[in-house]
Amino acid sequence: MGGRIVAPAASRPGRSPKQDRSKRTRDKLLEATIDMLAHHGWPVTTVGAVAERAGVSRGAAQHHFPTREDLMIAALEYMVRERSSQLDASFGGARPSTEPERTQFVVHHITEHYTGDLFKAALQVWTAATADQALRERIVPLEAELSRHLYDLAVTHLGADTSDRRTRRLIRATLDFARGLGLAEALIDDSERRAGMLDSWAAELATIKRVN
Amino acid sequence: MGGRIVAPAASRPGRSPKQDRSKRTRDKLLEATIDMLAHHGWPVTTVGAVAERAGVSRGAAQHHFPTREDLMIAALEYMVRERSSQLDASFGGARPSTEPERTQFVVHHITEHYTGDLFKAALQVWTAATADQALRERIVPLEAELSRHLYDLAVTHLGADTSDRRTRRLIRATLDFARGLGLAEALIDDSERRAGMLDSWAAELATIKRVN
Repeated sequence: MGGRIVAPAASRPGRSPKQDRSKRTRDKLLEATIDMLAHHGWPVTTVGAVAERAGVSRGAAQHHFPTREDLMIAALEYMVRERSSQLDASFGGARPSTEPERTQFVVHHITEHYTGDLFKAALQVWTAATADQALRERIVPLEAELSRHLYDLAVTHLGADTSDRRTRRLIRATLDFARGLGLAEALIDDSERRAGMLDSWAAELATIKRVN
Repeated sequence: MGGRIVAPAASRPGRSPKQDRSKRTRDKLLEATIDMLAHHGWPVTTVGAVAERAGVSRGAAQHHFPTREDLMIAALEYMVRERSSQLDASFGGARPSTEPERTQFVVHHITEHYTGDLFKAALQVWTAATADQALRERIVPLEAELSRHLYDLAVTHLGADTSDRRTRRLIRATLDFARGLGLAEALIDDSERRAGMLDSWAAELATIKRVN
């Protein structure tokens, strides 16, 4: 135990095969939870249903997540980590440095953040949280941190001059706008309308002040 | 039966006292449904729980709404009618005709539409509908109609020149932006931040083309 071992790529030095297996099971359960939330909704996403979908025994699932609340809190933290990594990946890719592409790139990735399965799953948890104070108290700081992270990425990539109030507010408004588009997308395939809206919005956002 | 009768203000000519009583019971059940959805969430809003909250017998509630689906469809239609009446009332009040008040008035009432209890209740039904195709098919046309109504009110009151594409899109973006603010508000009391955001948004929207 404890030393370097030959193990799948996902393993970390210092972890035993048993620990790795346990982490893989846990991740499989969390991924199944997110998939179920996004496509089947909160009410049916129970520990038992998630175990079945993940192909994990109910006993093993309950070992990881004794209650549904434990499962949802863990899924929420997992979602926030995943959303944060996806943001870093999308903003870290090949980035246009000239206009209008630079601003369009930022608007596109902000909107992408609010229209994927991770957002749809988060929407289910948020909606449940409107009637569940304990859950809400867990979500709010995580979401706030994620919004700040997204805001900072947008500022950096836009080369925005945040000493200018209009600039700060237009970037914040872009996050609200994208969240509103995400909510529409949860109900209908809004992608065609959205494409035109995003181009127009990017033209508005392009009028902010820049430092570079 | 059928003639004019002395009855409460809510009654309509041609309705019997029994019909009036039945309508009042139905409305009481629907109002209790909306209140429960907004403050306690979808999972607990059952026909039995709604009957109890409304002070109506379970039998009477089931006479009006044999299944939970019947209740939710009726509540949804009631919400859409109420949201539409509220819009007409808020846009029909004392309306400023000079800038910047005129545009601020429109932005304020659009946002109000997306941050009240009726929106919070609708959000619960939308979220449930992401996993329920039959429900989604009922909601989508109702929401589309409501959005068009809101858009038309905004255009009229702004005196917007809708032959201009940027003007049309900025008004549509205002609806998306307000929906995004509404979703944030469902989770936290976002009213302080929102006030500043709305002023800034109104300043952007004020740059549209006008016909009057």
